[in-house]
Amino acid sequence: MKKYTKHDYPLEQIRRHLETGPIVLVSSAWKGETNIMTMGWHMMMEFTPALFGCIISNANHSFELIRKSGECVINVPTADLAEAVVGVGNCTGGKIDKFEKFELTKAPAKIVNAPMIAECYANFECRLYDGSRIEKYNFFVWEVVKAHVAPAVKHPKTIHYKGEGEFRVAGDTIDLAGKFKPEYL
Amino acid sequence: MKKYTKHDYPLEQIRRHLETGPIVLVSSAWKGETNIMTMGWHMMMEFTPALFGCIISNANHSFELIRKSGECVINVPTADLAEAVVGVGNCTGGKIDKFEKFELTKAPAKIVNAPMIAECYANFECRLYDGSRIEKYNFFVWEVVKAHVAPAVKHPKTIHYKGEGEFRVAGDTIDLAGKFKPEYL
Repeated sequence: MKKYTKHDYPLEQIRRHLETGPIVLVSSAWKGETNIMTMGWHMMMEFTPALFGCIISNANHSFELIRKSGECVINVPTADLAEAVVGVGNCTGGKIDKFEKFELTKAPAKIVNAPMIAECYANFECRLYDGSRIEKYNFFVWEVVKAHVAPAVKHPKTIHYKGEGEFRVAGDTIDLAGKFKPEYL
Repeated sequence: MKKYTKHDYPLEQIRRHLETGPIVLVSSAWKGETNIMTMGWHMMMEFTPALFGCIISNANHSFELIRKSGECVINVPTADLAEAVVGVGNCTGGKIDKFEKFELTKAPAKIVNAPMIAECYANFECRLYDGSRIEKYNFFVWEVVKAHVAPAVKHPKTIHYKGEGEFRVAGDTIDLAGKFKPEYL
């Protein structure tokens, strides 16, 4: 699978890769163990600080790695990784190494200990910002502290889960910037 | 603009229309005033009850209508409505009637007082479930109490905002159900 060359990316612009609602891979590390999970329940919450909220069910093996470390990386896959994305979501990391099984490559992050996934065109390093609703909703509020995006990827074919095993692939781009007030762009 | 014939839709399946991350129109009503806003920062939070979280900036005229009524309707537009979606997002409801200006039609909801938008293929009636993080993050947790979806629409061309005036249109559907464990479908 293709690995991407990435550049640092402005934190206040990460919505460009997350607000469209792609399925993401969440990578984590705790006490020498690493894992990956597939996640679709997430949203942008603030530009600065760059806040990102998500639901991580406590039924996931990753839950404790993420909760205890207070860190993760949000990795954005594209359609070429769809089978790996489904595979990652349909097995548990308790017994297997998902990086090995799905031929995904760990790349060291700059700030957090969780690994980045080299085959994803965008990686967002996250530190826990607010854990006060983990117990009630499995809801984590993250601050994205470092962003890495492949500049060569202009129109990523992200995949968007719609349940029942089906995804929509991001299609045409429509540019309506001319209809916006400048201050809303 | 086309108006849709809709049927009641199972609440536990609303993720099929929201998890992909489309831009939505939020309609509201309070003391005889109605309004619409455009919103992209949202996520599914639970299947049952059907919980849906979103950020509604207090800079929006709709904020007080929504907060005071504790209700709204989440309406899912498709690409044919893209210019109206942008128009709604680029003006304020304080002085104008956005339904009239953008030729959108109010349809009565079944449970809440906020109107549904007839030109959107899916409408989700919401009651405030948890307002404890409104002050801190403008974060609302909604319980979807009634869902209406047009059964004729199989692959809605939803639009997904990526900032800077650009949207991605939902494209191909890929079906990987055969790769899922049955209990994960």
